[in-house]
Amino acid sequence: MDIADWRKKIDEIDRQIVALISQRAEAAQAIGKLKKSTNLPVYEPNRERIIFDNVRAANKGPLPDIELVHIYERIIDVMRALQQDELASQRSGPSAGETGKKS
Amino acid sequence: MDIADWRKKIDEIDRQIVALISQRAEAAQAIGKLKKSTNLPVYEPNRERIIFDNVRAANKGPLPDIELVHIYERIIDVMRALQQDELASQRSGPSAGETGKKS
Repeated sequence: MDIADWRKKIDEIDRQIVALISQRAEAAQAIGKLKKSTNLPVYEPNRERIIFDNVRAANKGPLPDIELVHIYERIIDVMRALQQDELASQRSGPSAGETGKKS
Repeated sequence: MDIADWRKKIDEIDRQIVALISQRAEAAQAIGKLKKSTNLPVYEPNRERIIFDNVRAANKGPLPDIELVHIYERIIDVMRALQQDELASQRSGPSAGETGKKS
């Protein structure tokens, strides 16, 4: 395979990663709604530790665990912002957080 | 579904994301080797623009494009470091970059 072939493969992998991150975001939104109704905080350090442990356990290389954790720190930041946004939109109106993709 | 159910779903999604990021890393390593043999630079801003365009095009929400781009900036940083590591290990010996997971 030459560089162009590998890049085609990467672009296809990226579309799958984007789809999974979107599914993860939908689950995080659902949890955000449940947290709101049960008054649980958005930030839960113990849950984040479990996420990192799960990521490390799933890692078979070639990336070192620490690099995957770096990527996941960013993913978790983004998901936390989404939950906070979800809570804010529930306060300002029920449909504001459900308009789908914003660009 | 309650919070525990959603978290189980997220943990399963995360294992799939980790597997895809690992596949992506393997492809980036392969490209790193080809770049070395063709003297192409590790950092190629035009290729990065194509990656971000592909990510935005694949995004169907609920995350805003900008948040996915934030995640991808981190993914690309990690992949670039891996390619640089690959080049360095090729200089110091053929097998040093191929020992799989490092922790």
